Amino acid sequence: MNEQTINRIRKFVADRDWAQYHSPANLAKSISIEANELLECFQWSDTDYDLQHVKEELADVLVYCRDMLDALNLDEDEIINMKMDMNEKKYSVEKARGSNKKYSEL
Amino acid sequence: MNEQTINRIRKFVADRDWAQYHSPANLAKSISIEANELLECFQWSDTDYDLQHVKEELADVLVYCRDMLDALNLDEDEIINMKMDMNEKKYSVEKARGSNKKYSEL
Amino acid sequence: MNEQTINRIRKFVADRDWAQYHSPANLAKSISIEANELLECFQWSDTDYDLQHVKEELADVLVYCRDMLDALNLDEDEIINMKMDMNEKKYSVEKARGSNKKYSEL
Amino acid sequence: MNEQTINRIRKFVADRDWAQYHSPANLAKSISIEANELLECFQWSDTDYDLQHVKEELADVLVYCRDMLDALNLDEDEIINMKMDMNEKKYSVEKARGSNKKYSEL
Repeated sequence: MNEQTINRIRKFVADRDWAQYHSPANLAKSISIEANELLECFQWSDTDYDLQHVKEELADVLVYCRDMLDALNLDEDEIINMKMDMNEKKYSVEKARGSNKKYSEL
Repeated sequence: MNEQTINRIRKFVADRDWAQYHSPANLAKSISIEANELLECFQWSDTDYDLQHVKEELADVLVYCRDMLDALNLDEDEIINMKMDMNEKKYSVEKARGSNKKYSEL
Repeated sequence: MNEQTINRIRKFVADRDWAQYHSPANLAKSISIEANELLECFQWSDTDYDLQHVKEELADVLVYCRDMLDALNLDEDEIINMKMDMNEKKYSVEKARGSNKKYSEL
Repeated sequence: MNEQTINRIRKFVADRDWAQYHSPANLAKSISIEANELLECFQWSDTDYDLQHVKEELADVLVYCRDMLDALNLDEDEIINMKMDMNEKKYSVEKARGSNKKYSEL
């Protein structure tokens, strides 16, 4: 996400005075709610989906994730790289290549 | 997310030959699953949460969102700005300011 | 669910003094969290799942639903029949037969 | 849920020829989707919720759980009692009383 998009999201929240509702807990609920609107695009079929609807719902998930980064004053790249360090250890290339098993079963 | 982080995620998937599992439907499930691991941080309390755990789970949501953008060949800023156009109309500043009501109730 | 099972769930909660945590909002989060542990059984495959794990997670969803019925003092059959009245109207047999479309698209 | 309600749900599905869509995986998605419509009732407030809406969404979760029990030919009381055996061991009264900690932290 570029700075212009981030600033648009921040202005959207500020203009509506919505930061008061953006507790981390409320945003966690919101991310799950939007993730399930995205999931609904695939409720009865994995392949017959409405791409425009998928784009809208995925965007909603990403906007609430951005709101949560802001509410907690987190840096997106920092937390992702921290987690990728963990993932790369949990799922070593040797063990995980071509497998969809959970790390606890590898 | 900067290019370096995006490339790290892509390499992680490529090295493990996991693109075969990354259908949009499977990624939608994965985003919801991780969103609920994030929600679990707030299951019994809105205020007493483990910030490190929150960071890890939010990062997982963001990584799967990036995987879905890649699987569908979408541009993050493009879909978010498309959706923000819609949100700004649905939630006009006049009607929505200070309110947590859904647009259909405003 | 028979009375004996319902009473076992109620005693489990009472013995641990957990009603204090069983606000409707916390139980709604809990139902979603357990629903996603159930969904995780199908994360990468629709057909290759661990039936024992599915049973355990479906049971967890049902237990939290029972806790929510109790927290709100609701009768399960009453609310389901109320909702089935609505569903039967929204999805008339003539329109909905053999279709997986949402009522708004029928 | 009494036999009459269970039979009403089964007839609803049979009349619409919907068993073809009721794979365990699709029902797991559906339970999560409805659980999140329930969660949406509490998105911005834990205490200011629409009880009628809560009833409808909780009923939807329960109906899809019933569909899943049927799809997998499971007995509700059997799987719940099996899981309660596990829960009573994981959360012993001595350790868990009055605490909202996860069993792994008790």
